[in-house]
Amino acid sequence: MAAMDMENNGDNSDHQIKWKFQGNKDLNAASISVRGILNMLVDNLDKSDQRPCIMLGRGDPTEFPSFRTTPLAVDAVTDALRSFNFNSYAPTVGVLQGRRAIAKYLSEDLSYQLLEEDVYLTSGCTQSIEIIISVLARPGANILLPRPGYPQYEARAAYEKLEVRHFDLVPEKDWEVDLDSVEALADENTAAIVIINPSNPCGSVFKYQHLKKIAETARRLGILVIADEVYGHLVVGSNPFVPMGEFASLVPVVTLGSISKRWIVPGWRLGWVVTNDPTAILRKTGIVESIKNCLNITSDTPTFIQAAVPQILEKTNDEFFSKIIYIMRQAVEVLYETVAAIPCLTCPVKPEGSMAVMVKLNLPLLEDIVDDLDFCLKLAKEESIIFLPGVAVGLKNWVRITFAAELVSLEDALGRLKAFCQRHAKK
Amino acid sequence: MAAMDMENNGDNSDHQIKWKFQGNKDLNAASISVRGILNMLVDNLDKSDQRPCIMLGRGDPTEFPSFRTTPLAVDAVTDALRSFNFNSYAPTVGVLQGRRAIAKYLSEDLSYQLLEEDVYLTSGCTQSIEIIISVLARPGANILLPRPGYPQYEARAAYEKLEVRHFDLVPEKDWEVDLDSVEALADENTAAIVIINPSNPCGSVFKYQHLKKIAETARRLGILVIADEVYGHLVVGSNPFVPMGEFASLVPVVTLGSISKRWIVPGWRLGWVVTNDPTAILRKTGIVESIKNCLNITSDTPTFIQAAVPQILEKTNDEFFSKIIYIMRQAVEVLYETVAAIPCLTCPVKPEGSMAVMVKLNLPLLEDIVDDLDFCLKLAKEESIIFLPGVAVGLKNWVRITFAAELVSLEDALGRLKAFCQRHAKK
Ligand SMILES: Cc1ncc(COP(=O)(O)O)c(C=O)c1O
Ligand SMILES: Cc1ncc(COP(=O)(O)O)c(C=O)c1O
Repeated sequence: MAAMDMENNGDNSDHQIKWKFQGNKDLNAASISVRGILNMLVDNLDKSDQRPCIMLGRGDPTEFPSFRTTPLAVDAVTDALRSFNFNSYAPTVGVLQGRRAIAKYLSEDLSYQLLEEDVYLTSGCTQSIEIIISVLARPGANILLPRPGYPQYEARAAYEKLEVRHFDLVPEKDWEVDLDSVEALADENTAAIVIINPSNPCGSVFKYQHLKKIAETARRLGILVIADEVYGHLVVGSNPFVPMGEFASLVPVVTLGSISKRWIVPGWRLGWVVTNDPTAILRKTGIVESIKNCLNITSDTPTFIQAAVPQILEKTNDEFFSKIIYIMRQAVEVLYETVAAIPCLTCPVKPEGSMAVMVKLNLPLLEDIVDDLDFCLKLAKEESIIFLPGVAVGLKNWVRITFAAELVSLEDALGRLKAFCQRHAKK
Repeated sequence: MAAMDMENNGDNSDHQIKWKFQGNKDLNAASISVRGILNMLVDNLDKSDQRPCIMLGRGDPTEFPSFRTTPLAVDAVTDALRSFNFNSYAPTVGVLQGRRAIAKYLSEDLSYQLLEEDVYLTSGCTQSIEIIISVLARPGANILLPRPGYPQYEARAAYEKLEVRHFDLVPEKDWEVDLDSVEALADENTAAIVIINPSNPCGSVFKYQHLKKIAETARRLGILVIADEVYGHLVVGSNPFVPMGEFASLVPVVTLGSISKRWIVPGWRLGWVVTNDPTAILRKTGIVESIKNCLNITSDTPTFIQAAVPQILEKTNDEFFSKIIYIMRQAVEVLYETVAAIPCLTCPVKPEGSMAVMVKLNLPLLEDIVDDLDFCLKLAKEESIIFLPGVAVGLKNWVRITFAAELVSLEDALGRLKAFCQRHAKK
């Protein structure tokens, strides 16, 4: 704030006053974020480097021309806005036609029909996470989260004082869930397990049988399955995307999702929480009521965007989706092959889906790199490339590389990566 | 959810399983809401009544033709969307050009300049409230809230376990703050006082001198002032709107606002939190850091709407604003005069601003009405008019009437109200 004329407002001797308010330390502790680390890397770029900075650190490829959303989705939103019919507050659970359209959309992949009342519209999958964590947080409860994972879960759980227990995703087993460790971690106070499929950050897509085993394990443990399917349908390998909701008769499933990734519109903030509850357990245990109550006291996404959902879902043609998948498939090939040829890097599993993959650093082969953060900092400074250090997603001395990028940019980045690794290799 | 084929998924004997999760009771308790009460009233409408239902229960006049937002604002959002430049995630603090535009807009009413870094963009003033309550909540702390007030504060404080203490707004004194009670309520653990000006639900607009006294009192007590100015500039009387930030050299002020009310776009979800902090107290006490950290772990409003803010603010012409004020001024005259002529109702202060006014029920003059809720339920059933019972905003046996309505609808509603009161008057 600019300097102001203090005289007008009388006594200005602040030293006399003991201000009684202060910031909330819990918030500060909870807010260890991917964004914070990425900002640090961006600050570390060498501004004299003439080459373009290539950002492969986050799941937001909107800056690449090939990842432009379909104009039909833009039209859908514009139409809703121009109708002047959607300037009012939306119902807290979401606009009816939007809920109905999402129910229909998700049911296409299920062997049963979801209804509009199973769907709650949110301000992106980010808010879906906020809501489900608030709903489950109660003194003493704990939640099982994947490692590596998506740190928004850890942040919200820390803020809501919901205890976190991590189970491992196993690179040697196609990043599948270590179900033994899940059984060992769970106790009387475990409320839920979070499954991210297709996986951010691993790039894996779980097989039907593995998902079924997860559901059976959760059933045995009496815990809820939270299925983060924000990357639903972004599949580049041979495993098809199977929604967790398919196993809802075994175990109640709360599905989280959004249009952010598949439609390449992370800035539009349209997501959902869906209760897959054929046996009415989510109703009986008060989860449904708590979701509604949580929505009552939080903000939501603009009404006209909610109202555009039916058109967005119906009008988008398969061509748009296939083009994106086609580009990402090429990207994965190039990335996987290049990394395989670099001694100090290992990519244990070729990515099957989502937008990112985990690559391991073989530090003993590197001359002067201390850890993953150091690797990413030096890579930013020397090569103007941004990767996410694995520590940000729970796996030290790995890096997460986003492959949702323009092919030419990705190839450029991989060329620089190769040069970087050669330069820093032990002689 | 529709019935599904259970057989496929194996064992379905749910009675064997003890599900360990449950809804969060704190959420349920916190979620006593205006919307809940309004839904109840709507459910109570007589569907055989041929007359249109007239909704005067909430601050959302978008359904009335005269309260249509300006096409220039719609164009601004459409342009941002059609540019394809704003489909990415926004910075958590908000898009730079949006922050800058809000700083400039608010500075027009201040004797100093706000800077872009003083402004944080939010998903409507609803989220601004969420954020500031999260920032102040810590064990043992309390906050001073007005009675009558805006129940989102109570709901968020209850959820965050921030103790609430109510001070009175005094109808006999133009709904001014009872400053003696403020001094009596505050103690070592008081963090802040909330001032809603122009006032929802009272319809009052505080005078410069009164605002200054509030600032001086807060300074003496060492507490933060939270200035909810979501109705800023919606002034129909003679008191001009003075932003609380004008007294920021006396006491740190956090201003909350949005475009929801003045632009008549509550469904667009674009709001702000602004730190008026010329003496750097909000920085020193960690409030600024906590605001940023809170934004890091919450969802936000769509990037293209944030990016449209400069155009929305610059392009909207005074004609649009004056027309709205002109209609509301007429509405206030009609409402005030009609109510004055109804014996069982008292409107102690002619509204000066916002969109609503508090009217007292003289229950002894009514035959068969138990309280304000009963009054509103019967009014809905018999006359298809919706008012908000005062109990929802903390004042039993009053009602809150929204005057932001089409004049012809308001007159219709007031005619029905008169008939209703005559019919229920003690003989
Ligand atoms: C696993 C996962 N869940 C949730 C989100 C948040 O999604 P949205 O952009 O819809 O808020 C992301 C974003 O990257 C994600 O990777
Ligand atoms: C006093 C007050 N504050 C905040 C809000 C929320 O505003 P927004 O619609 O911008 O979320 C309202 C809405 O009616 C209000 O009356």
